Amino acid sequence: MRNELALAKELDFKDPLKNFRRKFVNNINEIYLDGNSLGKLPKSSVQNINKAVNFHWGKNLIRSWNDHWLNLIERVSSKLEILFNANKNEITIGESTSVFLHQILTALINSNKYQKHLISDNLNFPSDIYIMNRISEINKSVRLTIIKYNSDIEADLKKLKNKIKSNPGIICLSLVTYKSSWIYPMKEINDWALMHKSIIVWDLSHASGVIDLNFKNSQTLIAVGCTYKYLNGGPGSPAFLYIQRNILKSLHNPISGWFGHSNPFLFSEKFKPSIGIKKFLNGTPSIISVVAMEAGIDITIEAGTKFIENKSKQQSEMLKKLIIKHLIPYGFKLESPIEVKNRGSHISISHSESWRICKALQKEKPLIITDYRPPRFIRIGISPLYIRYIDIVNTVIRLVEIVKNKKYLNFTHQKTIVS
Amino acid sequence: MRNELALAKELDFKDPLKNFRRKFVNNINEIYLDGNSLGKLPKSSVQNINKAVNFHWGKNLIRSWNDHWLNLIERVSSKLEILFNANKNEITIGESTSVFLHQILTALINSNKYQKHLISDNLNFPSDIYIMNRISEINKSVRLTIIKYNSDIEADLKKLKNKIKSNPGIICLSLVTYKSSWIYPMKEINDWALMHKSIIVWDLSHASGVIDLNFKNSQTLIAVGCTYKYLNGGPGSPAFLYIQRNILKSLHNPISGWFGHSNPFLFSEKFKPSIGIKKFLNGTPSIISVVAMEAGIDITIEAGTKFIENKSKQQSEMLKKLIIKHLIPYGFKLESPIEVKNRGSHISISHSESWRICKALQKEKPLIITDYRPPRFIRIGISPLYIRYIDIVNTVIRLVEIVKNKKYLNFTHQKTIVS
Repeated sequence: MRNELALAKELDFKDPLKNFRRKFVNNINEIYLDGNSLGKLPKSSVQNINKAVNFHWGKNLIRSWNDHWLNLIERVSSKLEILFNANKNEITIGESTSVFLHQILTALINSNKYQKHLISDNLNFPSDIYIMNRISEINKSVRLTIIKYNSDIEADLKKLKNKIKSNPGIICLSLVTYKSSWIYPMKEINDWALMHKSIIVWDLSHASGVIDLNFKNSQTLIAVGCTYKYLNGGPGSPAFLYIQRNILKSLHNPISGWFGHSNPFLFSEKFKPSIGIKKFLNGTPSIISVVAMEAGIDITIEAGTKFIENKSKQQSEMLKKLIIKHLIPYGFKLESPIEVKNRGSHISISHSESWRICKALQKEKPLIITDYRPPRFIRIGISPLYIRYIDIVNTVIRLVEIVKNKKYLNFTHQKTIVS
Repeated sequence: MRNELALAKELDFKDPLKNFRRKFVNNINEIYLDGNSLGKLPKSSVQNINKAVNFHWGKNLIRSWNDHWLNLIERVSSKLEILFNANKNEITIGESTSVFLHQILTALINSNKYQKHLISDNLNFPSDIYIMNRISEINKSVRLTIIKYNSDIEADLKKLKNKIKSNPGIICLSLVTYKSSWIYPMKEINDWALMHKSIIVWDLSHASGVIDLNFKNSQTLIAVGCTYKYLNGGPGSPAFLYIQRNILKSLHNPISGWFGHSNPFLFSEKFKPSIGIKKFLNGTPSIISVVAMEAGIDITIEAGTKFIENKSKQQSEMLKKLIIKHLIPYGFKLESPIEVKNRGSHISISHSESWRICKALQKEKPLIITDYRPPRFIRIGISPLYIRYIDIVNTVIRLVEIVKNKKYLNFTHQKTIVS
């Protein structure tokens, strides 16, 4: 693959985002293709954390709530509003994606504006399905439909639309699906839902930071998502919740903790919700984790999601072509949509030896870190802020080597907990 | 107050916990009596955070879930089980107190083991009341009773018990109340509830780390609490949830996110709850904040809550006597129970100029940091791990000085957001 390597080097040289890689802590002798599970550590995050711990907590103590932390929550939320082209006071942060999803689905059901019918599909992330399932178990008036497509790679949009039309309700979808990387046409589905008395709750976990999202243009009304993948927010960094302002008024937080109060430090007996999205906050957010997540958002804004998505698509197309040319002959299958417009930023492949191939990738230098999703997927995450074109070519070279020489035979079938 | 100062110095010299102060970051020229709002930074927490950020996130990346973080959540939970004398798999961490409270109250209601009647009192922390109020607003079959005592200092136990007897249900109480520091007789109330088909959900936010809690001996069935006060876990550090194992089986988490699954990384379609308390986890916990909170728990275990509570009571009694002798003549009032057995580790006082006195305390060196709770309370938090007896005497000396010389007149009535 000499030609491919040469081309990759040239593309890296010309890459307008090439200087962003330096903003992260990179391991020598490692190609990290798992930024879609946990993004890398931004160097400036280390500084932010040190300052917050040593000075804001250590020295300034309780005074830092007034001096730094109340403002921090608002500032980070505002940056996400900029990133996603939302209005002011439409995004907040603090809980996990699962808790925010529970809150917003419950609020939508209780608003009585939609049929009490939760809808999702077999491509959605299991945790989202668990949350929906539990809501309908507890509240017998809420039905749940999980649409099963014939494929676990692509959504059948016709089937999805027909379901919505014939049985409207509250639909939760992962904009970019966690296994195959399928991406829904966001505006088209939002419009369809609106036309049929339905609403889409988007889980943007696998999209935010790498897809050029635009909530206003796509007429998005509700979204949640984690920030520890392409936004590089750190392990378990707080998620975000977006509610479009026109719909916000009719929605009420089912978990009304003091941080959702318009003035929590009045300690008043009566709950008076905040104006704007802040009414969906609950208890005290985990400040050190909020501090840790800001740098990744800053870098993403600086780079611009237009440029990030553009590079992602180029890298993803390069990878797809390499897979077709060099890996399929060795028994690999492409498990992501073939067309770039239908894909997010990761590509899944499979092989009868997927698990052991993943292990073999991590053995020789440079270590190549991907992840494995049962029953057969090897996910290759492309995080354009720090992934180079040569990383992609080198990964394919290694995959060929492992399968050609049956190197995976040196590894056991035994799974670790997190794969 | 020369005699008092001399005595205080002697007590500090003899204090068996005196070496623990060195384990925290202390400001020169500052007496920090607000550890009941936000505890100090343990020095070892800085090391833990640096290691987790630079090595576990920065270098080890996704592999740290297997190598460190799954174990971290279990380890920190286990340490709290030791601290509170609970059984294995009865405590977990991760959400805020408000979210955990919402989860457990909802689970208790849905269990159908108790009358659908939520009960609290006017001494409880407002956020707990907001959470309960919202549950009963959404679920019309759930009644809410807030017992109003004639006092905002002490609970009327007879009134409380009569209410429980005549109208059983699910009762949420702050073991140590946030304003006056009143402490309930934990076992007595647990026993009474049990006898009358009721259950107590204890909010231990103002008790954990400074009261020698013993869940087995006190027959405690349910508890929640934050860890950023006397446990020194850092701003907004994750809270804990305790459910006694015999009752755990009949309770189901209303927010079933993937971290409550018995094997989240199987990504199975069906939700299969964890065995034990872990089924009450929701989404991915904020790992950096969990890392930050471990050191404070370690120090507390090392010191022993028996010794901490003992010192707290001695310091609190010293403070009370000084208040009666030196402050009441200047127009102060004691706003906490007079008997030490009825108090937690803070003491509240008031004055017609409470707010401006708080501000004046923070002006001259050593700065004295207390907090203000509307409408009139100056809270003086005694965190025995780092508060010295001389700190208490010096605080009273300063209070006399401020009021005697009307120094508070130099400050405005204007409030900051967090007081």
